[in-house]
Amino acid sequence: MALNTQPYKGTRDFYPKDKQAQNYIFDVWARVAKSFGYEQYDSPIVEPLDLYLAKTSEEIVSEQTYEFTDRGGRKVTLRPEMTPSVSRMVAAKRQELSYPLRWFSTPNVWRYERPQRGRLREHWQLNVDLFGVEGIAGDHEIISIADSIMQAFGAKRDMYVIKLNSRKLINFIFHEHLKFGEAEVVTIIRLVDKMHKLEPAEFVALLESSISPDQRDSVEPLLEILNAKDFSQLPDAVKSHQSAKNLHGLQMMLAKAGVTNTVFDITLMRGFDYYTDIVFEVNDTAPENNRSMFGGGRYDGLVGQFGVEPVATVGFGMGDVTITDFLITHKLLPEFTSNVDVAVLLVGDIYSDVQALLAELRSSGLNVSVDSTNRKLDKQIKSADKVGIKNVLIVGEQELESGTYKLKNLETSQEQALSAHEIVGALKQ
Amino acid sequence: MALNTQPYKGTRDFYPKDKQAQNYIFDVWARVAKSFGYEQYDSPIVEPLDLYLAKTSEEIVSEQTYEFTDRGGRKVTLRPEMTPSVSRMVAAKRQELSYPLRWFSTPNVWRYERPQRGRLREHWQLNVDLFGVEGIAGDHEIISIADSIMQAFGAKRDMYVIKLNSRKLINFIFHEHLKFGEAEVVTIIRLVDKMHKLEPAEFVALLESSISPDQRDSVEPLLEILNAKDFSQLPDAVKSHQSAKNLHGLQMMLAKAGVTNTVFDITLMRGFDYYTDIVFEVNDTAPENNRSMFGGGRYDGLVGQFGVEPVATVGFGMGDVTITDFLITHKLLPEFTSNVDVAVLLVGDIYSDVQALLAELRSSGLNVSVDSTNRKLDKQIKSADKVGIKNVLIVGEQELESGTYKLKNLETSQEQALSAHEIVGALKQ
Repeated sequence: MALNTQPYKGTRDFYPKDKQAQNYIFDVWARVAKSFGYEQYDSPIVEPLDLYLAKTSEEIVSEQTYEFTDRGGRKVTLRPEMTPSVSRMVAAKRQELSYPLRWFSTPNVWRYERPQRGRLREHWQLNVDLFGVEGIAGDHEIISIADSIMQAFGAKRDMYVIKLNSRKLINFIFHEHLKFGEAEVVTIIRLVDKMHKLEPAEFVALLESSISPDQRDSVEPLLEILNAKDFSQLPDAVKSHQSAKNLHGLQMMLAKAGVTNTVFDITLMRGFDYYTDIVFEVNDTAPENNRSMFGGGRYDGLVGQFGVEPVATVGFGMGDVTITDFLITHKLLPEFTSNVDVAVLLVGDIYSDVQALLAELRSSGLNVSVDSTNRKLDKQIKSADKVGIKNVLIVGEQELESGTYKLKNLETSQEQALSAHEIVGALKQ
Repeated sequence: MALNTQPYKGTRDFYPKDKQAQNYIFDVWARVAKSFGYEQYDSPIVEPLDLYLAKTSEEIVSEQTYEFTDRGGRKVTLRPEMTPSVSRMVAAKRQELSYPLRWFSTPNVWRYERPQRGRLREHWQLNVDLFGVEGIAGDHEIISIADSIMQAFGAKRDMYVIKLNSRKLINFIFHEHLKFGEAEVVTIIRLVDKMHKLEPAEFVALLESSISPDQRDSVEPLLEILNAKDFSQLPDAVKSHQSAKNLHGLQMMLAKAGVTNTVFDITLMRGFDYYTDIVFEVNDTAPENNRSMFGGGRYDGLVGQFGVEPVATVGFGMGDVTITDFLITHKLLPEFTSNVDVAVLLVGDIYSDVQALLAELRSSGLNVSVDSTNRKLDKQIKSADKVGIKNVLIVGEQELESGTYKLKNLETSQEQALSAHEIVGALKQ
């Protein structure tokens, strides 16, 4: 029986044009990260399963990991995210490394999800993390990088919005200000996370049913807080809390540097259990693709889980699938063409004799293919044209002897008789 | 209990210097492949297990796959090699694609092996494949690319040798010339594959014991063939076979193009079951690292396994672990330094005010980090120096006001007072 040609469900094969598009995204990611002084790292895609048990979200670990037992009996999984791995690496060299430590990577990560728009089982994810900077200067740098990447992709400020919140502020509001119990807080946070997918009345009903009778007085003040559009609409006791002041300061600092498309959103929760302070999320504003694209936050406690001195950490992850949807939606994805500068087409059995010419052209930095199929010239031209090669060089015995070759532009049909040296000049300009 | 900080057994964490070394290798691979007109592709690391059952070596499939059952009950594996995946992708678009088709990729592949020098459980592998070119022109191109990569790494011709053989020639010798039976051939090939690891007498004894009594007359002629150092030492009936002529022609064609470090080696088998014609292998000649590094060959039958018209195919794979060992052995691996052009050090609480300067420097193409830790200047300098940053820019309120900043070279201790524009000039030269 013939083998199936389709890739594994929820994943992508990257044919050359797909790979060029992905490489374009990778290049922008790396260029911007490096411009902020970040260095690239990487780690194996297989990790011990227990790396995720402590702090990755419950849903991911219990329902979405690609876990298995290896031939040596070890319980392992394909990484569902990169944050535990980078924390492990920093912990392993906690004392040797120099801080501030600026690291980025572009790993593929795996989650067993129902494939849908913007969500696949394998995707690549830029991870940018800053270790050793406490407070809003670190938060500001991380959000600036996320924003600079959007700008480098050509996005305008009205195409996306950066939502800001703080886990410390959430904790203050729920535990100290409104005095909910531990179990209630967990339930309420899950509910608030879904707030924008529910009708307002439905949300209020669900909220009331999950709060104990002696706490019913807190429902109204909670709803007021959840509906606050900016800091000024918060109750005094909340907006004067240090975490609210920090978050407001961060928003002002971003605005001063030109990042004006931020909003305060107290309903922004982010799924991961390891966040400890600010969290942020970048959303597409296009009506047809209005969704969360990526985000991050501060997670000061994760490195310490490995038994070493904790280190202040803030970072974000940005996936290739959601950003591709964004670029397509806003018509920002460039067109890609062949990276072959010239295809050398052969007239006669001269493959061996043309090698010196090929070597000369390649050593000048040109990308040069050769058609060694011995087909008729028109078939060779058709093949080159079909893959988007713009220039062909037609070579026979006569051309090899004279050292003058016919360079033909397939778009304009223009032909020139040139020496090897002149060909390099013509194609490099 | 604290989590373990070590990576999964037999794999590597890539700290920034390790990743720079790997990126250097990736860049050379991609640059040379592109110079021959190849385009990059990729595919998911998880594949259906049955993709490997037909043609990958028995040992890999039964003992070395990272196979598991996913949450939907599918039997899958981490890819142990790339050839079946690329064949699957070509088969899926067999009619749409244009030939000659030139593709390369740099996937990570997984094999459950005992970790040892040059062999890890996860490694990255350049795969270069040419589809649609029959005969030695295609073979020549593929081996030329492998050779050009070695040259691009700075290797001299005496540092490595390219061994050449042909599956067709082996088949002719064993089946037609010496008339061994099917089962005998399998046993003898396995034995010949280990020939160079055995004492000559031991090899002969094992050979005799695996040949049926009525075939004992063939032992002597077989040994003569196995010990042939070049084509002239083969019996006439063998060297006049078309497959031997092709192989010899290939060797001459390579020599004409300057690839003089090839040898004919009839004992070269290569493990994969899918090879159909020429095979080759590149070996390090250094006494301390004298081993097979990588290889490839022609596998004209693999795409046809997917129920489409077969296509002539030749290719090779080259791993990052073995090539790194080679580069280190021959002192060819460059030293890597920080990719940060300048670290901006702050005197006073001016993080927010320095953003415009940072943006200006970054937009000029410089990689610029900023120390936002509010530490004393000498500590900031020490941190920058420790990660190998060569230049620091010292900025306080006075410098921001005047627009003139102190650029200090940490290697020479030289200091200059420069404007932002002058800094860009000084660091870019």
